[in-house]
Amino acid sequence: MSDHVYKVIELAGSSAKSTDEAIRNAIERASQTLKHLDWFEVVETRGHIDGGKVAHYQVVLKVGFRLEDGK
Amino acid sequence: MSDHVYKVIELAGSSAKSTDEAIRNAIERASQTLKHLDWFEVVETRGHIDGGKVAHYQVVLKVGFRLEDGK
Amino acid sequence: MSDHVYKVIELAGSSAKSTDEAIRNAIERASQTLKHLDWFEVVETRGHIDGGKVAHYQVVLKVGFRLEDGK
Amino acid sequence: MSDHVYKVIELAGSSAKSTDEAIRNAIERASQTLKHLDWFEVVETRGHIDGGKVAHYQVVLKVGFRLEDGK
Amino acid sequence: MSDHVYKVIELAGSSAKSTDEAIRNAIERASQTLKHLDWFEVVETRGHIDGGKVAHYQVVLKVGFRLEDGK
Amino acid sequence: MSDHVYKVIELAGSSAKSTDEAIRNAIERASQTLKHLDWFEVVETRGHIDGGKVAHYQVVLKVGFRLEDGK
Amino acid sequence: MSDHVYKVIELAGSSAKSTDEAIRNAIERASQTLKHLDWFEVVETRGHIDGGKVAHYQVVLKVGFRLEDGK
Amino acid sequence: MSDHVYKVIELAGSSAKSTDEAIRNAIERASQTLKHLDWFEVVETRGHIDGGKVAHYQVVLKVGFRLEDGK
Amino acid sequence: MSDHVYKVIELAGSSAKSTDEAIRNAIERASQTLKHLDWFEVVETRGHIDGGKVAHYQVVLKVGFRLEDGK
Amino acid sequence: MSDHVYKVIELAGSSAKSTDEAIRNAIERASQTLKHLDWFEVVETRGHIDGGKVAHYQVVLKVGFRLEDGK
Amino acid sequence: MSDHVYKVIELAGSSAKSTDEAIRNAIERASQTLKHLDWFEVVETRGHIDGGKVAHYQVVLKVGFRLEDGK
Amino acid sequence: MSDHVYKVIELAGSSAKSTDEAIRNAIERASQTLKHLDWFEVVETRGHIDGGKVAHYQVVLKVGFRLEDGK
Repeated sequence: MSDHVYKVIELAGSSAKSTDEAIRNAIERASQTLKHLDWFEVVETRGHIDGGKVAHYQVVLKVGFRLEDGK
Repeated sequence: MSDHVYKVIELAGSSAKSTDEAIRNAIERASQTLKHLDWFEVVETRGHIDGGKVAHYQVVLKVGFRLEDGK
Repeated sequence: MSDHVYKVIELAGSSAKSTDEAIRNAIERASQTLKHLDWFEVVETRGHIDGGKVAHYQVVLKVGFRLEDGK
Repeated sequence: MSDHVYKVIELAGSSAKSTDEAIRNAIERASQTLKHLDWFEVVETRGHIDGGKVAHYQVVLKVGFRLEDGK
Repeated sequence: MSDHVYKVIELAGSSAKSTDEAIRNAIERASQTLKHLDWFEVVETRGHIDGGKVAHYQVVLKVGFRLEDGK
Repeated sequence: MSDHVYKVIELAGSSAKSTDEAIRNAIERASQTLKHLDWFEVVETRGHIDGGKVAHYQVVLKVGFRLEDGK
Repeated sequence: MSDHVYKVIELAGSSAKSTDEAIRNAIERASQTLKHLDWFEVVETRGHIDGGKVAHYQVVLKVGFRLEDGK
Repeated sequence: MSDHVYKVIELAGSSAKSTDEAIRNAIERASQTLKHLDWFEVVETRGHIDGGKVAHYQVVLKVGFRLEDGK
Repeated sequence: MSDHVYKVIELAGSSAKSTDEAIRNAIERASQTLKHLDWFEVVETRGHIDGGKVAHYQVVLKVGFRLEDGK
Repeated sequence: MSDHVYKVIELAGSSAKSTDEAIRNAIERASQTLKHLDWFEVVETRGHIDGGKVAHYQVVLKVGFRLEDGK
Repeated sequence: MSDHVYKVIELAGSSAKSTDEAIRNAIERASQTLKHLDWFEVVETRGHIDGGKVAHYQVVLKVGFRLEDGK
Repeated sequence: MSDHVYKVIELAGSSAKSTDEAIRNAIERASQTLKHLDWFEVVETRGHIDGGKVAHYQVVLKVGFRLEDGK
């Protein structure tokens, strides 16, 4: 880890299928524009209900990624 | 959303299989007696252990539903 | 516990005598109208002061009870 | 306060105008069906955004009311 | 800010009109006896209900003020 | 409550006998120097152990009292 | 909501007039550079005091907005 | 205290009689196997309900004890 | 439950596959050395990211087990 | 500790040099006017930035001191 | 402060030497790309252990900076 | 990390000199009896005051270490 600096952002992913997939959806979307993604932490698990059933799971995450030097 | 008022109740669902199913069990039980269920939020994830294995996952949820006017 | 669903309500009991009695008062009042009360958890312990002395202890509880099927 | 028991429920009121009005809307809706409302406490202040402006303030409240004896 | 030391006190202001006025009432009352009031932070927003309407908003604040040297 | 302003202080009372007595000891000590004590709220319950037994219960409280005008 | 991903940022808006206006100021500033703003949540309400009066209310918000695909 | 190091463990004691006794039961059980118990802190107060009455109070504690050198 | 005393320990399990499996891995590892495991509670859900994908889910749990008498 | 009562106040100390010195500055300022200072607990660590560097560390503390009898 | 809007980001700095240096490292890295950095707040202090010794302190910070108009 | 399981314990280290040294003292004491120590997290920073000066800093840590298989 030497003296690297990390930035932590907050994302909310959703999935009609599972909380784990909601996490993966958020991470994979973030990896389209950010490099060096390193860890995540679940902040909140929520969801929407439609017709008396779970319509979507929504998971709010903190995601940490290493900043490159001088950028 | 105009000026609707929502009530938020707390439920605990359980499942021998998964945390996601424990959530679904609680929502589907609530929908037997309540209309207009709109969202949920996980408050706590717990469980019981039997014979050194997870016997049940138990998920405590807040569930919000819209109150109809004048009732 | 199989796949039962529990409802969790919040109550505040009070007693001039002790915090333990304030808990008992809330539970016993709830049992007049609810069946299958199963557990409680203390959320907050407060009280009122009168003439420089504790007038009442007030304990806010979450109380869980099992929902019967289809009701 | 003697040895009364209070029930605490959670409500979310909304208003296009202000957070204070969102609180009043929730309280006044609750008073249509519940007697002896006594206090409230703000749990969360949220809202929705539409077209880059606040569309609605939404305030989640705990509301306490006294239970009558034997009911 | 150099090496000043601040004291932080907790106050509860109330107002029949608005949460913002409840904050102002607490600050202005504190300024009658304390100098160098510098910042505040809302700890809790509560209130009392009478006749099914908000009777008073009550806002609990932390208020910081700079201590003068050697006093 | 009209527009009164309250100050909230934090006290820790202790007792070799019970947590309730630790609360009473703190309130009664505070009432020797402060008027208009109105409510308390338990912040933390701790204690010391000596020889494998509870030596003292220690309860940390917030205590609110009404400020008189202009003082 | 299908499987959209949201980013959540944290902003602090201020206003000399009211907490509600501090929220609106932060949202409207954010909408100058971000599209698809969807919801906000109040994290903290603070302020500065000058001459014994509230000089500015400052409200810290989390603001969520939908990420477009592949950007 | 010089430069001693303490270990903090978490215990749950129960009692059919009172929360204070539940604390004492946990401490006295811990003292059968651990030396140098020094302080405790209440983490959670819960309980079980049977037949509409409190069957057991259960108190979760953190308990700190001094580690001897080199063990 | 009579007057049993429970010890609560904290474990972190991980799994490349799911959060539920991370929980099961931690419980089953604990059951190799501890008897009378009774309940668990999720404290934190985290994970590591590698190549823009979730590499491991990691779940931190509190796990409670009954202490036998006099040991 | 017998049945002493402690008062807990909140202070914010600052230092251009270190967080530890910010703590010492607050304690030493408090000891100019208060006797029997006994313990402290860090509530918050903040600071100000000037020209892209830490200008001051600011540490908010709770400080406990024993009240003398009858004062 | 007039009606400025601030953005708050989260960073994790690390240092083999001290927690204070971990804070400085994060702030100085952020100042390479952001102007008007104004304050920070410590969210979490963690670290890694190697060979039974602290290898790195890691401090997670919220850092606030003023947004310029219309950007 | 594959599917390792970690145990998390809580320790309080102290030092008359600095909070960083209090952390190091706790870690180094733990490494006398535990292998595979991997990370720590600060839970609480406290201390004792003697003669109006900081006598000891005390830092409460969670410390995680990898469990070996089958032990």
